[in-house]
Amino acid sequence: MNSYKTIGIIGGMGPLATYDLAEKILDNTVAACDQDNIPVLIDCNTRIADRTAAILHGGADPRPEMKKSAERLETAGADVLIMACNTAHYFYDSVCEGISIPVLHMPRETAQHLLDMNVKTAGVLATDGTCQSGVYGNALEEAGIKPVYPSEEKQKIIMSLIYDHVKAGIMDFSDLDIDSVISEMQEKGAEVLILGCTELPMAFDIIGQKVLPAVDPTEVLARAAVSFAGAPLKDESK
Amino acid sequence: MNSYKTIGIIGGMGPLATYDLAEKILDNTVAACDQDNIPVLIDCNTRIADRTAAILHGGADPRPEMKKSAERLETAGADVLIMACNTAHYFYDSVCEGISIPVLHMPRETAQHLLDMNVKTAGVLATDGTCQSGVYGNALEEAGIKPVYPSEEKQKIIMSLIYDHVKAGIMDFSDLDIDSVISEMQEKGAEVLILGCTELPMAFDIIGQKVLPAVDPTEVLARAAVSFAGAPLKDESK
Repeated sequence: MNSYKTIGIIGGMGPLATYDLAEKILDNTVAACDQDNIPVLIDCNTRIADRTAAILHGGADPRPEMKKSAERLETAGADVLIMACNTAHYFYDSVCEGISIPVLHMPRETAQHLLDMNVKTAGVLATDGTCQSGVYGNALEEAGIKPVYPSEEKQKIIMSLIYDHVKAGIMDFSDLDIDSVISEMQEKGAEVLILGCTELPMAFDIIGQKVLPAVDPTEVLARAAVSFAGAPLKDESK
Repeated sequence: MNSYKTIGIIGGMGPLATYDLAEKILDNTVAACDQDNIPVLIDCNTRIADRTAAILHGGADPRPEMKKSAERLETAGADVLIMACNTAHYFYDSVCEGISIPVLHMPRETAQHLLDMNVKTAGVLATDGTCQSGVYGNALEEAGIKPVYPSEEKQKIIMSLIYDHVKAGIMDFSDLDIDSVISEMQEKGAEVLILGCTELPMAFDIIGQKVLPAVDPTEVLARAAVSFAGAPLKDESK
């Protein structure tokens, strides 16, 4: 029986991103059998209100259900919590309030990862909501890394990539000039691209651009959680 | 906010099969946004001992940790429990003992599904452990369906398919005479094949045989759980 700490996932934001994070924990753990894997508790709480709607449009408050999930997972035995949703980190302080276990912060873990890579300037690719909420901007600036964002025109291409393509299941991106977004990021000094929306790693797996290295925050968070749990970490594959 | 019942998954048997079951719940639910999905609690309890080793070789008893998971999920708010592992159903009665919520039984749900299809004889494809534990044989006989199994020689092909190929990540099956297994099942009167091991649906997606319809118990269980939770069920895709 392994002695790893138990990872808790505040999930449902969205459900598929939740299971993708859980599978990335498996993918990043050295394990020869089921019992070598880290115990994971998941609360796929689909009663949590939409985060972007709350931040940008005065929608229902997601915090009460997020806090319920955090408390439920702590009570069930989680030693540390994580969340698969980038935008949800806007409400990070509220989630931490009622519990006594740590919550790993995806944008801050990503910023730390970029510091380890010696990055000075990072391009943030995300939804309008995530960009405007400042979750990546703040985390990067705290780490002394300069965030750069697409212009309004290029941001429309990223939004179309996320909403009209990946979320709609249309994985042909030939109508979008993604190269122009990447060139713009490079002109602004970006040394890496942060894929700050859970839809973007799926798109970039297909796009496969080689101009700038792309960092997947879900992967970074999964690896941080594996380390925290005390399990042996697989070598980075990407 | 939806009013669906909460599904609890006793997981970790194995972890990947656990997340596959959770994703099949998503795939089978009619949902236009995150909040239309069923709340799901998952205890990916990797401290549960190997089921096959316990049944066939006197290995460590998996029941204490299975019971702990069941109690933990009930306390956290689950209204019904399910398990992704076929073999785990050998310990079904022990899991039910300490809790007051129902546990859906994957082999019995599968038998009910076959009754609805008006099947009289079903071929069981599974590991030696699952076959010998009688979890499918008993569930089918209780429903008045006759189970048929591969001969010793053909069973070796199924074991090689599961262990030497899918579990080892080798998805080229050209060295295995799968057709001969299916022909034998047909000669024994099987009208359908039960893919009674979580590795087999992955293999049969690739094999794509058209001789006998194949039933995936994980899919059947996911659909039974969606119905139990009170959410609208998608039309069967397979």
